[in-house]
Amino acid sequence: MGDRVFEHVIRVGWGNCDPARIAYTARIPAWALESIDAWWEHHLDGDGWFQMETDRNVGTPFVGLQMDFRSPITPRHRLRCRVWPTRLGEKSITFRVEGYQADTFCFDGSFTCVFTIADAFESQPAPPDIRALVQPLIRS
Amino acid sequence: MGDRVFEHVIRVGWGNCDPARIAYTARIPAWALESIDAWWEHHLDGDGWFQMETDRNVGTPFVGLQMDFRSPITPRHRLRCRVWPTRLGEKSITFRVEGYQADTFCFDGSFTCVFTIADAFESQPAPPDIRALVQPLIRS
Amino acid sequence: MGDRVFEHVIRVGWGNCDPARIAYTARIPAWALESIDAWWEHHLDGDGWFQMETDRNVGTPFVGLQMDFRSPITPRHRLRCRVWPTRLGEKSITFRVEGYQADTFCFDGSFTCVFTIADAFESQPAPPDIRALVQPLIRS
Amino acid sequence: MGDRVFEHVIRVGWGNCDPARIAYTARIPAWALESIDAWWEHHLDGDGWFQMETDRNVGTPFVGLQMDFRSPITPRHRLRCRVWPTRLGEKSITFRVEGYQADTFCFDGSFTCVFTIADAFESQPAPPDIRALVQPLIRS
Repeated sequence: MGDRVFEHVIRVGWGNCDPARIAYTARIPAWALESIDAWWEHHLDGDGWFQMETDRNVGTPFVGLQMDFRSPITPRHRLRCRVWPTRLGEKSITFRVEGYQADTFCFDGSFTCVFTIADAFESQPAPPDIRALVQPLIRS
Repeated sequence: MGDRVFEHVIRVGWGNCDPARIAYTARIPAWALESIDAWWEHHLDGDGWFQMETDRNVGTPFVGLQMDFRSPITPRHRLRCRVWPTRLGEKSITFRVEGYQADTFCFDGSFTCVFTIADAFESQPAPPDIRALVQPLIRS
Repeated sequence: MGDRVFEHVIRVGWGNCDPARIAYTARIPAWALESIDAWWEHHLDGDGWFQMETDRNVGTPFVGLQMDFRSPITPRHRLRCRVWPTRLGEKSITFRVEGYQADTFCFDGSFTCVFTIADAFESQPAPPDIRALVQPLIRS
Repeated sequence: MGDRVFEHVIRVGWGNCDPARIAYTARIPAWALESIDAWWEHHLDGDGWFQMETDRNVGTPFVGLQMDFRSPITPRHRLRCRVWPTRLGEKSITFRVEGYQADTFCFDGSFTCVFTIADAFESQPAPPDIRALVQPLIRS
């Protein structure tokens, strides 16, 4: 997995579980997205999506995602979400997120966003400072 | 789209929107899943996932999904989610969900579940009554 | 209850339930709030909180709430939430919300909001058109 | 505040905020409840609500809550939720939760639960080991 991979830790609790006593499926894309938000925050001087939109006028809306659910998620362990960018296009970025509990591989997924001028809701190329930041972190 | 397609209507509200003034992305898979739950309820004598698990001992956990987000979703219209099964395997079922607001195509996605014996959390073939129900509703 | 009481219907589903097989407690204030949003939409020409903020520049942030949970909520019935205003102050409004499933009284609560100029996030007196609308709907 | 007060830290993110660019009100009771779940986990050998129900057959459903919202919550700081029990009745327990961001007091609330035999959904007196644990942590 390598040292460079960012990991976001989720506390899975009672309120996230359904009557099958496992995390409700719809919680999992929400956690993956939160982990991508945390990835930005970690790499962009503390700026997650909120500050990117508000302070930098950069939006990154999602255009697609795909996920595989490999093992149920429960409150018995923290959920560790590993996040890294796999591709940086001219106007888009794709992330991979993998979720683990203890030694169990729980889910993985791919998530693609486009860059926008936030207040205009128009697409734009990745801003240069963001491109410079992301490029060395890309792993296929 | 045809008359046979089940439609589940979502009220999109303030609490579903993010600071970009559109529905937060993670709400959308949650709505798609709720629409599939409502599809079962509509076709299975009022039994959604809760009654399937509790009264019929049948679970249908998700093993994968993929979604494309085509247009932002806002509180200005109801969100109509169209749901139909596209494939029934021996032990699995795949649904397509499409979301519309007024005439705008907002998202589509594909969602695959496996059938389980709920209290054993073991996979099983689709129960015969469910197979008989689903088969004529399949559309590619 | 009288004819004048607005009722907002919630579909309670699998994804709202916790391992005790009842709706998770934190869902209930969320449903009460959604019902108040729907109350505004019903009475204010289709304008809920989103349109009040965006089109009318009126915010109504919550300053307090209290709730009693009287009976568990399950997916076996729709949840009918009755909403009405109990008090209109110079700068605040208080709502009562009561939730029922079939003949069972599930919860009630009181919710107080203040009026703000939305883009300034400053409190203001209730706008005259809103005051005129709300006044005849008050019930203690 | 004293050393004995348990603190649960919440990462407030984009997905928790509404178009007013602050955390949506309904998120706040959810965070307070999560903080109480984390309080149990911290004090009960790693057992939160999930393990209490599943492994100890003890439920603690909520019967009431009241909250005051004192200052808006944003993603610009972590939200620190302080939790302590204020009263232990024969069959009930009341918690106070206070939320802070940096030096700002954001919300406080009171939350009352009853003890149940989980698989029977019947009320019971607080189990002796739990009573012994909670008693010295009570603060008015």
